Amino acid sequence: MTGCGASLSSFFFEYDTPRIVLIRSRKVGLMNRAVQLLILAYVIGWVFVWEKGYQEVDSVVSSITTKMKGVALTNTSDLGLRLWDVADYVVPAQQENALFIMTNMIATLNQRQGTCAELPDAKTVCKSDDDCDHGSTDVHSSGISTGRCINYNTHVKTCEVIAWCPVENDTYVPRPAFLKAAENFTLLVKNHIWYPKFNFTKRNILPNTSATYLKSCIYDAKTDPFCPIFQLGKIMKSAGQNFQEMAVEGGIMGIQINWDCNLDRASSHCLPKYSFRRLDNQDSDHTVSPGYNFRFAKYYKDANGTETRTLIKAYRHPLRHHRLRKGPRKFDIIPTMINVGSGLALLGVATVLCDIIVLYFMKKKFYYREKKYKYVEDYDQGLNEALRTE
Amino acid sequence: MTGCGASLSSFFFEYDTPRIVLIRSRKVGLMNRAVQLLILAYVIGWVFVWEKGYQEVDSVVSSITTKMKGVALTNTSDLGLRLWDVADYVVPAQQENALFIMTNMIATLNQRQGTCAELPDAKTVCKSDDDCDHGSTDVHSSGISTGRCINYNTHVKTCEVIAWCPVENDTYVPRPAFLKAAENFTLLVKNHIWYPKFNFTKRNILPNTSATYLKSCIYDAKTDPFCPIFQLGKIMKSAGQNFQEMAVEGGIMGIQINWDCNLDRASSHCLPKYSFRRLDNQDSDHTVSPGYNFRFAKYYKDANGTETRTLIKAYRHPLRHHRLRKGPRKFDIIPTMINVGSGLALLGVATVLCDIIVLYFMKKKFYYREKKYKYVEDYDQGLNEALRTE
Amino acid sequence: MTGCGASLSSFFFEYDTPRIVLIRSRKVGLMNRAVQLLILAYVIGWVFVWEKGYQEVDSVVSSITTKMKGVALTNTSDLGLRLWDVADYVVPAQQENALFIMTNMIATLNQRQGTCAELPDAKTVCKSDDDCDHGSTDVHSSGISTGRCINYNTHVKTCEVIAWCPVENDTYVPRPAFLKAAENFTLLVKNHIWYPKFNFTKRNILPNTSATYLKSCIYDAKTDPFCPIFQLGKIMKSAGQNFQEMAVEGGIMGIQINWDCNLDRASSHCLPKYSFRRLDNQDSDHTVSPGYNFRFAKYYKDANGTETRTLIKAYRHPLRHHRLRKGPRKFDIIPTMINVGSGLALLGVATVLCDIIVLYFMKKKFYYREKKYKYVEDYDQGLNEALRTE
Repeated sequence: MTGCGASLSSFFFEYDTPRIVLIRSRKVGLMNRAVQLLILAYVIGWVFVWEKGYQEVDSVVSSITTKMKGVALTNTSDLGLRLWDVADYVVPAQQENALFIMTNMIATLNQRQGTCAELPDAKTVCKSDDDCDHGSTDVHSSGISTGRCINYNTHVKTCEVIAWCPVENDTYVPRPAFLKAAENFTLLVKNHIWYPKFNFTKRNILPNTSATYLKSCIYDAKTDPFCPIFQLGKIMKSAGQNFQEMAVEGGIMGIQINWDCNLDRASSHCLPKYSFRRLDNQDSDHTVSPGYNFRFAKYYKDANGTETRTLIKAYRHPLRHHRLRKGPRKFDIIPTMINVGSGLALLGVATVLCDIIVLYFMKKKFYYREKKYKYVEDYDQGLNEALRTE
Repeated sequence: MTGCGASLSSFFFEYDTPRIVLIRSRKVGLMNRAVQLLILAYVIGWVFVWEKGYQEVDSVVSSITTKMKGVALTNTSDLGLRLWDVADYVVPAQQENALFIMTNMIATLNQRQGTCAELPDAKTVCKSDDDCDHGSTDVHSSGISTGRCINYNTHVKTCEVIAWCPVENDTYVPRPAFLKAAENFTLLVKNHIWYPKFNFTKRNILPNTSATYLKSCIYDAKTDPFCPIFQLGKIMKSAGQNFQEMAVEGGIMGIQINWDCNLDRASSHCLPKYSFRRLDNQDSDHTVSPGYNFRFAKYYKDANGTETRTLIKAYRHPLRHHRLRKGPRKFDIIPTMINVGSGLALLGVATVLCDIIVLYFMKKKFYYREKKYKYVEDYDQGLNEALRTE
Repeated sequence: MTGCGASLSSFFFEYDTPRIVLIRSRKVGLMNRAVQLLILAYVIGWVFVWEKGYQEVDSVVSSITTKMKGVALTNTSDLGLRLWDVADYVVPAQQENALFIMTNMIATLNQRQGTCAELPDAKTVCKSDDDCDHGSTDVHSSGISTGRCINYNTHVKTCEVIAWCPVENDTYVPRPAFLKAAENFTLLVKNHIWYPKFNFTKRNILPNTSATYLKSCIYDAKTDPFCPIFQLGKIMKSAGQNFQEMAVEGGIMGIQINWDCNLDRASSHCLPKYSFRRLDNQDSDHTVSPGYNFRFAKYYKDANGTETRTLIKAYRHPLRHHRLRKGPRKFDIIPTMINVGSGLALLGVATVLCDIIVLYFMKKKFYYREKKYKYVEDYDQGLNEALRTE
């Protein structure tokens, strides 16, 4: 046959398989199987069963809507007897993935644009106009300095500023928290999830939930684990936090909804699991800049058409929603093959280990070496020897 | 040579390769090649070509801004003839990744802090003061009970509460939706994407889009697939939803912008693809807690300085933006090597399979076994036999 | 022994290892080691050291809160002398992951529901009532057309509309930006991170930061890299942007907080790294729909109880926070094993390469082939030959 035909013929019609040395030894045989078993146990047990290495993970498209309910009554000299409901304490009204609940506040009523004395601190206290820089402003200023030094009250003088007057006095945070009744407020969380790759949808209000149950249930990890209504005080407690303490300076709570679903099983096994956690560190050693607050204002016009505003420094609880990314899993060929392939390659380690023991550590190592290896001298040497022996 | 020198010499100057048994058999040869071909087809065809296993995926940094346009005219006894524009129906004004469009609402005008009769339901209807608990409040209450039982209207008496009065009456949701003209509102979506790893940026308003086109185009999957302006009614229709039905109780729409880019090709091939989907399940079997609504208020001060508010229970459409995570891909050596490595290990399966057939199932199995295996007895046995034969 | 017992015995008490042909040739030996070294260098150097292929990556649960500080003074004919503070220019008050800072605006004061002339443009300019369609509205309309053509001003007539009157005139964007002093505003960013898998928490205000330092520091990449307070002008500059230009039409800035932590080391090595980037493309070739703006309104009631509003078209800077997803890493057995397995399989390539060279390209290839391969004829042929030679 021609060279090309011979190559093709040998490529298709020949089968090569490694020549194997079969050592009949109990010791070595058992050791070999033991090592192989360990590797198999790791691959099957850990990678496939525990970590589900045969499954593909999908990422989730999730939407969450929340609704607070609950009212609180307060009675202060500033505001009088006042009822606070949802529209009053959830500001801004709605967020994606976060809800802000005001638990404490400092309200400065009836501010108007004008000039007045700045709040006293190390930089603003003055004795005469010389201490005040006209037109200057500081990162913490309420306004722009006019250059004059005026009375803040009967005891102290501070630099005058152009600002919303009177300026806010946030030195003392109200204790206990102003809206301490917020502990009893309830939060309804509606979570819809969609896994595009697997075309699977579900929501956290389960199919067997009746409207009556939803009207009155409160989430409890043991008795009502699928009720989507959470009481604020209760969830803070399960996160190991004291609501009243946290309510004073504010803080950030996270609600995690874990949908660890195995879509190779029925969809009714795919259930939400809730957990709560405080997200801002409250390290007792590090009390710099604790809590969470921000300012917003409500604007009015008085009878003369002059704009007035109420400035509110709100200490609040953002409740953030997270979904732990242990998304749903479904059998997929590619991760399976990658793990099978790697597993097979690792099995080769068993042979290497046993070879080392047999060929270097056993008493009969030279005997086994002679059986395993076929020594081939370099051609020239081989030829010379052949010539010599002739 | 010394032991160390000999080892080094053998390590560097010897080459070990497995001894191969070459079986010349058409049957076995062809079967071997067939199995190898299948494995190769999987590795190259599926892993590399289809799933692009040689490419690295990057995650995206994306920012979306949205803008609604459109006006609606309403005429009701409460509010009279009124024009609603963007500032009126998009509340809160702007969100990251979500936009809330009010389509239906229940407005309670001129609420003031005071005492009034609670909305009648199973828990609030009463006959005398004994039926009302002073200071009590319920999850669904509008306020705190005063303990008195008063007339809600000429037909029924309910417990009196301290609340924003008059209390909201949300028993009947307006049908059809109050702002049904919202169907014609348009939404401009500006999406900027940035892939840090590949340092690639693009936006969904393509470079060849003129200002004139942008002033008048409306997105259509066939005729204008790259116009970033969407008409609400149209996108709900393409998601298989009826706008007017959804507008009554509200709902959540998702807009997905799919940037499935292959960055090994020119950037002009990287184009956005839009799809729409309703994100909250509207399962006809499960009508518990449908739709999406929340309450917010607008605050005023009357001539006397008393605070009044308009409470709005808004049924709305949040439009959420998602980017499907089939991010951009670019050739990378590591996933390539992992897949090549696993593929190679899998090729070994061909040999195992053919070995099994040759050595256990063919007629000539014993013949082939003799050729493949070199039997080595345990040393002691071998020695004894050698001694015996002497 | 019975068949079953014999099989079991051979399975456990025999050890098979490939028979190896050991070629003593300097050339081939060195070449083999060189190829193996290259593959090992790739696996160890690239995969394990550079890409940390032995570590597992966790995804982060992160929460960010922000706070602006700073005031600006403006003096216009419309609004007079006015001081703007945080509550005025951060609208809406708080977002998750984004903060909107108003830098420029067009305010339309004292709008009331009524009828008035539309803003003049190609579609609204008219000569007589015939040019105006009763009840029609356009995507860009301020209201619904009444069908009448009235004077907009002494020069031009436009169609009359039912709208909030007077209609907004946004033809000319104020230059320079209205709140140009925003350049000096500062932004405090508090970032808490939590890695659930590794149960590791940290925040970007480091443990050794004192309250005094926090009161006065400003972030600088060289001198104060861990101060979490950023000055707007400075961060825009480090992103290569001109604040005053960007302030006119608005734009989107991204702040990335990179927590590239190796949790196999002490947690004090886990530090945040800040970088800034403009997220909306400002391609000079493509100026269609630049910047970022939206409309919101402040609502009032006048002495008669009539609702009025101030419409604000705000050009703003959303500051978006991203965390680059090079999450924390920790040693994990599975990615290590996958990479080890793939690496082992790749080492086999060295043998294939050297085999090819030895068996096909060297002078002594036939000699080596004879040593490597044990040729086995098909059984029948072998038998026939055996018979023939007898």
